[in-house]
Parts: sequence; structure tokens; C-alpha cells
Amino acid sequence: MCLNGYIKVLFGQLAALDHNGEVMSVTISDIEQAYSALAKQVVRTPMLNSSRLDALAGRRIVVKAECLQRTGSFKYRGASHALNTLNRAEKANGVIAYSSGNHAQGVALAAQERNIPATIVMPDDAPTNKIANTRAYGARVVTYQRGVESREAIGDSIAKRDGLALIKPYDDHRVIAGQASVGVEISQQCSELGLDDFSVLCCCGGGGLSAGIALVLEAYNTGAQLHTCEPNAFDDTARSLITGTRQTNATETGSICDAILTPSPGEFTFPILQRLAGTGLVASDTEVLKAIAVAFDTLKLVVEPGGAIALAAALFSDQLPDSDTLVVVLSGGNVDPRIFQQALGLNR
Amino acid sequence: MCLNGYIKVLFGQLAALDHNGEVMSVTISDIEQAYSALAKQVVRTPMLNSSRLDALAGRRIVVKAECLQRTGSFKYRGASHALNTLNRAEKANGVIAYSSGNHAQGVALAAQERNIPATIVMPDDAPTNKIANTRAYGARVVTYQRGVESREAIGDSIAKRDGLALIKPYDDHRVIAGQASVGVEISQQCSELGLDDFSVLCCCGGGGLSAGIALVLEAYNTGAQLHTCEPNAFDDTARSLITGTRQTNATETGSICDAILTPSPGEFTFPILQRLAGTGLVASDTEVLKAIAVAFDTLKLVVEPGGAIALAAALFSDQLPDSDTLVVVLSGGNVDPRIFQQALGLNR
Repeated sequence: MCLNGYIKVLFGQLAALDHNGEVMSVTISDIEQAYSALAKQVVRTPMLNSSRLDALAGRRIVVKAECLQRTGSFKYRGASHALNTLNRAEKANGVIAYSSGNHAQGVALAAQERNIPATIVMPDDAPTNKIANTRAYGARVVTYQRGVESREAIGDSIAKRDGLALIKPYDDHRVIAGQASVGVEISQQCSELGLDDFSVLCCCGGGGLSAGIALVLEAYNTGAQLHTCEPNAFDDTARSLITGTRQTNATETGSICDAILTPSPGEFTFPILQRLAGTGLVASDTEVLKAIAVAFDTLKLVVEPGGAIALAAALFSDQLPDSDTLVVVLSGGNVDPRIFQQALGLNR
Repeated sequence: MCLNGYIKVLFGQLAALDHNGEVMSVTISDIEQAYSALAKQVVRTPMLNSSRLDALAGRRIVVKAECLQRTGSFKYRGASHALNTLNRAEKANGVIAYSSGNHAQGVALAAQERNIPATIVMPDDAPTNKIANTRAYGARVVTYQRGVESREAIGDSIAKRDGLALIKPYDDHRVIAGQASVGVEISQQCSELGLDDFSVLCCCGGGGLSAGIALVLEAYNTGAQLHTCEPNAFDDTARSLITGTRQTNATETGSICDAILTPSPGEFTFPILQRLAGTGLVASDTEVLKAIAVAFDTLKLVVEPGGAIALAAALFSDQLPDSDTLVVVLSGGNVDPRIFQQALGLNR
């Protein structure tokens, strides 16, 4: 773990230092302030279920359909909250973000809605629909070669040169607080549904969404634990949770789950997950394709590979917690039509 | 129009006689009673939008995502309400329904949840997933040849022989009142969204859903008018609205919109639509496939052909009303995977 990372837990707050040595923390108060503003800006996505899905999983499954969020993923929440907090000069100068596609679209639309100029650094192998949609939301797109160039270096360089505010995809307390609004809704909706023995399964790339949800589950005394879900060969978080130090993946390409192929857990997100998350779960690309087909058939939802990984784990993992109900976060739906067709073509 | 059909409008109530000469009417009080019980049984489906969809349509579009309803279509609402009203003896004897697939699944699941035996009469050319799902919800399925045999005759015959309560797909005031709960939600949600100049576009087979919604739009003084949407060659309602008498289609097969290929407008639903609906709209099967692809891309929703007809009309019709916003009902999502793959393969 980086030295300027996690340092202490004070009165239920997680505190850490950012690169400038300032205290970084995400408290339930931060999260509730974010939620309060976001409630008018985001879709309160539904929690859905299906008796046929329950039969397939052998257990009650309730999905949080965050693929129905504006721009097709939860990333719009963190982006919107980060932009809500900018001052007038920052808004006038514009923002920059790097992303494989969903944070890109979230920042682009949130910026467009506020008349803030946005520049997005995206890998040139990102799904073409994600690049096209980011442009359609009015952003300037700069591409780079994933695995060869560093998106962080490119983003930092342009940000400094043009005086742009950098909106990181997960290692930013504003972004974590924004994504945590998913957790607030899950807590409310589980209460409305009368669920009192549940675990939450959530995709994990950099960990902004899963860390945010985990903080809420703790603060609201739900008794529920969050389990991160990753592709088999990109299980950096699962391994980091076992070793207690941030592990990296051997490669950045080679899975259809493009949205969650980050090199390692976040500097600020991992300490939260280390403290709060249960066993990290994994699933194969084939299991992800099957999960996409199951969501199509039983829930009528379009889910992208990275967004279906938690459902894949719920259906196929042998390391599941033994709660009565699994709350499965379907985090995004920006799937390439050819991948979706491939999923629908399985077993026929 | 049948002689024992529409006879009078009394104090805002539409009254008609059923086959036994009893007064058939659907009042806003009936609808609100149905809604009150259904609120705990159905999904309050979200109203969703997309700036990219608005750009395609050249106007603000808000969809009512009823494809996310239990069993994948609005039909679960009317079925649930009809079963809510059965007496103990009727529940013990069981129910029967005839349906091309969505009413089938709605009745099957609603019956299964209440431990009521269900028999469903379905055409043998219904999508295989609709027949399989109906069986998965615990119903006994009896098939017939569409266009050769009469499902009404088969349903009536089995109902009499076995003493089953017949749950008709649309010409039943309980079913209309149940489907009307979609209209109650639309009215509430449009108010929440601050929409005050909108029209509602809705698929139309027998007319239960569209008649139910139209009654609510009127009773709540929304100022909004409903427009029925049908496949080009199955525009019986559009022609009936022009002529003022119930027209029939030349055939019962030949469109991918299997859910809405009814022979003519309903006896009880048509007088409601005649009084309240605007110009009937139509769309081609190719436009429906494009609408399915647009819903996939911009909304992350799985919509079946019959459920996408209103979106097809919103995107392609040249007879649209000039409201600021079009509220488009996406009524179902039980699509054959091969049809969905065909839609995604367009223009590539």
C-alpha cells in the first residue's frame, strides 16, 4: 500500500492523504450531501427481480439496475457530483477525465448539462459505441494506446497545459461519494422490500462504486457485506484483499469486461474495501456472456460485460456468501452490439 | 359496433353491456381501487429518457419502461387485478386464459403466486420463449392453430367443461382497470417530471392498455391525448377510429409484432378509444426493428416488437401530435433472441 494512502480510521471516518498531503476522507455526511443533490439529477434506478432468475440461481436475487442510469452506467453519479463541487473558474476552464468509456460518458454528459467544456482521454481500443457516445455528449476525445501509453500521464499533462480540472475515475473523494449514492438507494430499497439478510455483489475496477456502497452499508448498520466481482485474469482486488497489499494485473487487455480492466485497486478505494469487503469473487468471460443472456431473458435489461460480472458471480461462483438474498449491482449497459449478439447466440 | 357494446356515458363513466346484459363500466374509482391493491404487487416501472434518443426523435421522448414489469409486460397488472377479485370457489377451481404470450405469462405468474391452477390457450406459432416461460410459471398450456381455430371457442369450451374462471385479455372491466394502473403511474410521473404538454403513444392490440390509460388521462385532467400504435397491415384500430365502427384485419399473421395481432378492437375497449383517443398511428416491421435497436442503444432496455411499436411511431411517423413531449409506452420485452439479433444487425 502506498505510504500516503490509508492512514487512520477516526470516529467511523476513513481518512487518507492525497498526493498534496491533504486529508482525503469520505464520510457518511459527504455521501448524504452528494445524494441530496444527485437525487434531482440521477435516475433512482429500480431494484428488480424475477422468479425465473431465482430458480436459475437457487436463491433470491434482486438486481440494482444501474444500467438504466443516464449515459448507461453508474459513472454519471460520481461525475455529476464532482462537477457539482467545482467553483466558477474551474467550470469556465473546463474538465478533463481519462476512462475506458463509462466515466468518459458520465463526465461528458454531466459537463454538457452544465455548459462546461470537457476533454476525455480514452484508449483507442475502447468499444466504438463508447467513443461515439462520448463525442455525442459534446466532449473532445483524445485517444491513446492502452498498455503502451499512460492515460494518467496524458491526462495530467493536458490538465496542466490547459488549466483543466482533472476528474479521476475513482481515486477522488467526490467521485466515491457520488457513486455511494447507489448504496444509499440500495439501503432504502432493501428496506422497502423487507430484505434483512442480504449481501451485495458489485463489479470492481478501480473500486469507486464498491467502496462507496460498502461505506453506506456500514454506516446504515445494514449488516450486509459487499463482495467485489472481477474477471478471472483481472482479479487484482480479490488478491489484494487476501494479501492486504495492492496487487496488480499482469496485463490490461484480454477480457471482454473492458469497463473494469484497471491495473490495480485504487489508492483511496482499497483501504475502504480492505476494511469492509468480504471475499473477492471472480467469473470467466463465458460466464459473463451467459449472465448477459440471462439478464436479457429474465429481466429485459441490456447489460455490458463489466456490468454483468456480479450477476455471473451470483450464478456461477462457488464462493458465495450464504445470505438469503443476493443484491446484484448491474453497473452498466454500454455493450457493443456484436458482443451482445454473441451472448444471445450461446447454446442455440 | 356490436349492439350490446357501448351504450352511454353517464357522469364521466363509460357504461356498456356484457354478453349477459349486465352493465360493464370502468370508472376512475374502479381504477384507483385496482391501483391501490396492485401498488404492492407490481413494479412501479420507471420513466426514462436519453438525450441521444431526443436527438434522434427531434423532440423530448420519455418512455414508460413497462418491459421491466414482472413477466416482462404490462399484462401482469390486469391479470393480477382480475385474480385479486376472484372469490374462494373460483380460486379453488382455477382460471383459464387465451393469449399469444404476454397475457399468458401474466395470468400464469399471478395464478402461481396465489396457488390458483391456471390453464392457458396459446397459438402454436407463439414465440417459443413465451410458451416456455408460461409453463415455467406453472401453467398448463393448450396450443391451437392461429387463423384456423378460434381461441375464444376453445377457451369458452374448456372453461365450461372444467368450471374455470375465464380471464379475457382485454374485454374484461377488471383487466382494463388493472392495465389502467400504468396510466395512474404515468400521470404521477409526468407530474414529478414537470411535464405539462405531452401526448401518450401506446401499442394497441385489443385495446385494454390504451383504453385504460386514456380513461386515466381524462379523469385526471392531464390535457394529454393517447394515440394508439399498430403495425401497418394490422391497423384495425386506426381504421376503426376513422370509420367509427370496429374494423377487422385481413389476416392474423404476417408481422413480427406477435403481441398485438388481434383481429379487431375490443367490444368494450373500442368505445373508450373512440371517445378519447387521437389519430391512430402505424409503423412498419422494419421501423419496429430499428426502434428495438434504438432502445437497446440509448435506453439499455430489451423491448419486443409489439412493445416497440409506439417508439417506432415516435421515431418515424409523419402523423405525430405536436406536443412538447411524447410519452412512449414500451409495453413488453419478451422478444425471441433471433429477432433481437436481427434488430442489432441492421445497418452493420
